[in-house]
This record gives sequence, C-alpha cells and structure tokens, in this order.
Amino acid sequence: MRMYDIIDDKKNGRALSAEQLAYFVKGVTDGTIPDYQSSALLMAMFLRGLDAYETFLLTDCMAQSGDMLDLSAIPGIKVDKHSTGGVGDKTTLIVAPLVAACGVPVAKMSGRGLGFTGGTIDKLEAIPGFTTSLSREDFFQTVKKTGCAIISQTAGIAQADKKLYALRDVTATVDSIPLIASSVMSKKLASGADAVLLDVKLGSGAFMKSLEDAIALASLMVRLGERAGKKTAALITNMDIPLGMAIGNALEVSEVIDILQGGGPSDLREVCTALAANMLELAGKGSYKGCHAQASQALADGSALKKFAEMVAAQHGDAGIIKNRGLLGTAPCHLDVYAQKCGFISGMDTEKIGAVSVLLGAGRKTKEDQIDRTAGVLLHKKRGDQLLTGDRLATLYSSGTASLTAAAAQLTAACRIEKTEPRPEKMILAKITAEKTEIY
Amino acid sequence: MRMYDIIDDKKNGRALSAEQLAYFVKGVTDGTIPDYQSSALLMAMFLRGLDAYETFLLTDCMAQSGDMLDLSAIPGIKVDKHSTGGVGDKTTLIVAPLVAACGVPVAKMSGRGLGFTGGTIDKLEAIPGFTTSLSREDFFQTVKKTGCAIISQTAGIAQADKKLYALRDVTATVDSIPLIASSVMSKKLASGADAVLLDVKLGSGAFMKSLEDAIALASLMVRLGERAGKKTAALITNMDIPLGMAIGNALEVSEVIDILQGGGPSDLREVCTALAANMLELAGKGSYKGCHAQASQALADGSALKKFAEMVAAQHGDAGIIKNRGLLGTAPCHLDVYAQKCGFISGMDTEKIGAVSVLLGAGRKTKEDQIDRTAGVLLHKKRGDQLLTGDRLATLYSSGTASLTAAAAQLTAACRIEKTEPRPEKMILAKITAEKTEIY
Repeated sequence: MRMYDIIDDKKNGRALSAEQLAYFVKGVTDGTIPDYQSSALLMAMFLRGLDAYETFLLTDCMAQSGDMLDLSAIPGIKVDKHSTGGVGDKTTLIVAPLVAACGVPVAKMSGRGLGFTGGTIDKLEAIPGFTTSLSREDFFQTVKKTGCAIISQTAGIAQADKKLYALRDVTATVDSIPLIASSVMSKKLASGADAVLLDVKLGSGAFMKSLEDAIALASLMVRLGERAGKKTAALITNMDIPLGMAIGNALEVSEVIDILQGGGPSDLREVCTALAANMLELAGKGSYKGCHAQASQALADGSALKKFAEMVAAQHGDAGIIKNRGLLGTAPCHLDVYAQKCGFISGMDTEKIGAVSVLLGAGRKTKEDQIDRTAGVLLHKKRGDQLLTGDRLATLYSSGTASLTAAAAQLTAACRIEKTEPRPEKMILAKITAEKTEIY
Repeated sequence: MRMYDIIDDKKNGRALSAEQLAYFVKGVTDGTIPDYQSSALLMAMFLRGLDAYETFLLTDCMAQSGDMLDLSAIPGIKVDKHSTGGVGDKTTLIVAPLVAACGVPVAKMSGRGLGFTGGTIDKLEAIPGFTTSLSREDFFQTVKKTGCAIISQTAGIAQADKKLYALRDVTATVDSIPLIASSVMSKKLASGADAVLLDVKLGSGAFMKSLEDAIALASLMVRLGERAGKKTAALITNMDIPLGMAIGNALEVSEVIDILQGGGPSDLREVCTALAANMLELAGKGSYKGCHAQASQALADGSALKKFAEMVAAQHGDAGIIKNRGLLGTAPCHLDVYAQKCGFISGMDTEKIGAVSVLLGAGRKTKEDQIDRTAGVLLHKKRGDQLLTGDRLATLYSSGTASLTAAAAQLTAACRIEKTEPRPEKMILAKITAEKTEIY
C-alpha cells in the first residue's frame, strides 16, 4: 500500500477502505508518513468529504492509536461529556459534581483552551493548589471515593489525533464536520466511559454557525458513539451569547460556585441542569423529567456543592474558595465599561467577546502562551437587557492597564443596541439521539 | 501575511491575489514555508482550481524564482519547443537540427524522463561522448556557430517550480491543468526564447486523455506565453500509439537518424515536420504551407542531418553513429514477440507499452534509477497493421533475460487485435494559437 494512492483516491472522491485508513493512521502515529502527505490527504478529505462509514473507521483507528482507558474498575455506568467549545463555557466544573451528586460517577479528561474558547483545565487551575495531573490510580481512586474527578487528557490518548489536529491547525483543515467528529469521538472512545453526552455549541461564539451544520455534526458524533457500543446523545446549545456572565478562569470558577449554591445566571443554570439531566438519563436514572428534577434538587439542596468541595479537596485544591472567593485572587487592574446609548442589547458578537478576554490575558493565542488566571470579562448586562446611557455594561480585569482601553472599545463594538426588545432565545436548541432529532 | 490564510482562501474557493501568490512562491523558494503547508495549498488548488489570472501570476512568480536566461546575444528569433511527454517521443532530437537547418536558431533546455515517458536528455546521452552539460558560454557559442544546441535544464531555472513539482509528485497533485500549465510555462518564460511551440500529447500514452482537456491545457499555456510577451502556439498530437517504432534511448537515436536521412516511420515524420513548420511560422519564416515545404525539403536534401551531425560533434558526441549505428551499442539480450492470433491491430495501450520499456531498463521508476541505454522495444507492427499468427510484433532489448518474458506478455496484452481494419487516426489533432483553435 502507498500513501500516494490513498491521497489520489480521496482526491478523486473515492471512499477509502478500512485498510487504507488503518495504514494512514498507523503511519501518522509512528511517523513513517511525512507531514506533507498527511496534509495533502487532510485537504482532500476536507474538500471531498468522508462518508459516515469512513468517518467511523478513521475514528476507530485514531482511538486505538494510543492508550485505551478501562474504567471497569469503577462501579456504575460512567458517563462522559464533551463540549465543542464556547465563550464562558464552564459547564464541566458544574455538571461533573452535579451528576456525581445524583449517584452517577464521572471520570472526566479535559483539554486546555486555544483561541477564543477557554479550556476546563485552565479554569480548574485557577483554584489554588488544584492539580489536574493525577496518576491513573489516583484518578480512579478519586472517582471511586468522591464520585467525580477531572484531569487533563493524558499524552497517550488518541496519539494520531493529537498529531493530525496539530497539522489541521496550521493547514486550515479544522472546520470539517467529519474531521471534527472523528477527532472528538476518537478521544471519547479511548477514554473508557460507558455513555457520552455531547454539547454542540451553536452561534456567534462557536465553530458551528448554522443549526443545519450543528445537527449534522451532532448526528454524526452520536452515530459514531453508538456504532462503537456507547450510549450517546447530543444537545445543541446556544452560544450566540456568552454562557453566564463571567469569562476568564478565576471569574468563571466564582460563577461556578454561584450556580452550585443555587444562584448564578439563569442561562448557565438552565444549560447545566439540562446537560446533567441528559447524562443521568444516559446512565439509566429514569425518565428525562425525573432526571431533570433530580439535578435541580441537587443544585437546590447543596449536595452538588458538597460534591464539588470534595472533588476540589481530593485534587489538592483549596476548598476554602467556596466561603472566601478572595482566595481565587483579584486582577490588579480593572475598568468598567458603560453603555454609550440607551436601548436593548439585541445581539452580542460572542467570538469578539472571547477575543476581548484573550486580549486581557485570559486565553491563549498560541499553545506556548501563559494564561493570566485572574484576567477576564464580567458582564453586567446581556442580550435582552434594557440599558440607559451610562449603565455599567461590563467590568474588564487584567494584570496591567495596557490592553484595557482597546478591550473596552472592542467589547462595546461587540454589543448591538437597538430600540426594541429582542425576542428571547432558547438555550437548548435541539436534542439528538440514535432514535430521533428533536428541535425545540 | 500568513500562509494559513492563503490556504484558507483557496480552500474556500476564493481567487488568490498577486501578493498572496508572490508570498507563497517566495516562501517555497527560500524554504520558509514548510512542505506540509505547501502540499495542503497544492491540494486545495488542485480541487478548487486556479483562474487564468491566478495561473498567470503563479507562472510569472515561479519563472522569476530562479535564473532568467537572456538569449539576446544570439542573433535571430529563437524558438523553443516543449512536449508534455509521451512514449517514443524523440521529436526534439529531430526538430532542433531541422529548424536550425531552415535558419532559425534553437537554444533548447530539456529534462530527464520519469515514469513511462523518456527524457530528451537521456536519449542524447545514448550517443557516445555526447554532453548535455555545457557552460552558458559554450551553450551560446554552439547555438551561434551550428544553429542549435540541446542541454539539460540548469538547476537555477524556476527554482520554486522544481520544489513544487517534487512535492506534487508525492502528493497526487500532478494532473491539474493550471498546475501543469504554470509548471511548463514558468520554465519556458525563464529560458529566454522569443517564441514557444507546445506539443500537447493526447491519448493512451499521455497525461491528457480527452481532447477537451488537451485543448484546455494548450489554450491556457498559449495564453500564459502570449501574456508574457512570447509568440506562442500549441499542437495537439496523437499519443494513442507510440510515436515511431522505437522506444528506448539508443533505439530512438537510431530512428532519429532514419528520419533525418529521409526515411523512418511516417507517423514520426509527419509529427516532426508539423512541429518544425510551426516553429518556423512562429519565427516569421512565412506562411505555414511555405514553412512546411521548407522543413520537408531540409529532411529530403540532408541539410537537417548535416545540422544534427554538427550539433553532435559540437557537444562532444561521436557523429560516427550516423554511418555506423553499431557505435550506439546493442543490448546483450533480445526476445522477439510474435502475434498469437490474426487480425488487425485496432488499438495499443501506449502507457502499458511505456511501462514495458521501463521494465526492460529503458526508463526510471524513481529519480535515482540508472537507465540502460540500449534497452527498449522495437515495434515491427502498429495500429492499423494486419497480422498473421506468428508474425513478429516487436523485439524486446535488455541487458539481462530476467524481465524479457514478463515484458513480452505485457506487450502482447497491450495490443488489441480485431477482425476488422480500424479507421486511420490523425497524428495532428488540433492547433491552438492566440487567435483561434483549429480541430482537424
């Protein structure tokens, strides 16, 4: 078999065979296929597409290109969760202890952020002392003891995906539905959970900009999961506005605690409750309605917060942050941004708001960038809110004053203000299972 | 400017700007753009296409990425010629002295062969003593003195094309009309001739398999040449059968001498006369009809043969081969192939026949392969010829017996024999100039 013929076949629109995809993934993993051939194939895959069966084969080969985690030592049905990424998306920090509080173990591996979306691991590391690098044994022990743990994805998982993702990132081949689906699902298949809930973000702060594309991606990932024997479902959730009011690592951890204390922004609470309820449903905890009630109850009665405190302590973090938010630190500089005209916020360019947080130091432009954990944006008003000129729109936090003025101008430009009140938008837009697609 | 955005633009089907193409070609030439980004762009160019203006810009940048030859020291209108390559194509060896004999100087740079098509340089090197590496001064002096010289393309010509061609060769992005056109024409623009005749081969032994594609390629190359200020024309010639009866370096040189002596196969004579007549027409030597008569006369009266002998001697080759073909050497082993049934040869898979010659040692599979200069195929029958069972179809020549049997079977399989006589095929299929396209 020759890589040349594999490229030629895909270039001519032919479906690749199981043997061809296995040859490609093996060659990427062991480094025998040069990057220039891989990138030519990735571009041909991008432009010619992969059918569902090819995508399944590619996913399966990539999953098996590294360590395959075996979670069977942990009792119960383990449910994993993956978000395609958005601005202010701190749901994993809430949902993991929430689901665990309802009796379903969560052994979660997460990634760091790149670009305008923050990563779960970066957020957790804003908690003083918190470690996301546990040995496999400690990881298992923590899940067994407290019901949940979140660690950074180990280097050994889906090695081919890691190399191909790095190549896609520099060859403009990231935003392909089959390539995204196979990348996400190869890691999910390797991470050992029994069931997977996917949170596909849709809107101005997400990769997916149309409901059609989001459904296509979600459906494909659900099929990939089910085909590999995992119960899989997907929600499509609203990322046309930032999720919650806080964007930036320490700011987001504080908002996580608000939600776990039964308060916090309603959009974030709604999305987290729906995610948790779907995870409980996947774990066989009854009807969706019943699961939703359980999750709401666990937020209301403090049991999810208690589970969060246990997880933080088990991972060597300072659980004192719950009572004393000051322990999360405060940025030395801040700037309030005021509304320059009155009206209603009718829309927010969420990708731009994400870029503002990166400008302030809360995110990475390149993999080598250091994150400023106290930097970020705290919104005071959101889509649908009424403004009077001079109302406080947001507060910007940074370690220095250099970026504050430019960030304030960009934030103002990212908010569209109109005379009439916009129609409210749904937060949960669709649900996709192996059986059906429901659009809400 | 970032290479990422250039890839992204082409991937999304947008036309690239002059600045983008210049950035890309410069980065390829100086090695600052990694191969994996170049190959992703080449695949995007392959699948999304390049418009005529982009192709012109790319060609121009590639031409200027290396040495630009200045032939103005040689008096007269210099006409260059390029063939897209085919099996048994030894036309340059005939046409260069033939055109020179008619008073038009030919300063020609040629390449080596790869794959099933042989290279002019390999053929010339079958002449004992012949050198294709002349200094620029000797090259100019030879053309001035004898009227023609053929040397191997110097390393400094169109450097970006050299690197991109090597990358296309291993990433299945060779057979793209705009990429072929820009590769050929960048070298022609850099090689300094005043006018260019293109010989686009069409048929089972050529890259172009349909008249439509051949015309598209020829028209594009003619436009590229004219846009760069060179008088340019193209012929589309028949490569559905091998050109002439000899395939293999020394065998082809012998056939070249046959033609220059006024004999040789009629298909080869027809193509060479047409090529020479078109080159003379481009050089302003009068009407096509008059030019054709001049070329025919120069073959008939021995003046082209005399010019060939002068060129061989000037390039340190042994002109004694004209009188004594034995000086070209003879392969130690040969095998006659006989017809296994009677009928007419109705078709020849010319690419397969080219592959037979490579198997015998006459061509290269990879750039590092050594060529056996006496190996090859001498056909005794061709398309349209009637056969009786046991008639000699061809003789195979090789340095050993190892490949002879397999080669004989492949050659037999490459010839289709049917009961009825096939309709004769034209050798010159179309002519394309800036003004018009004539299909014959």
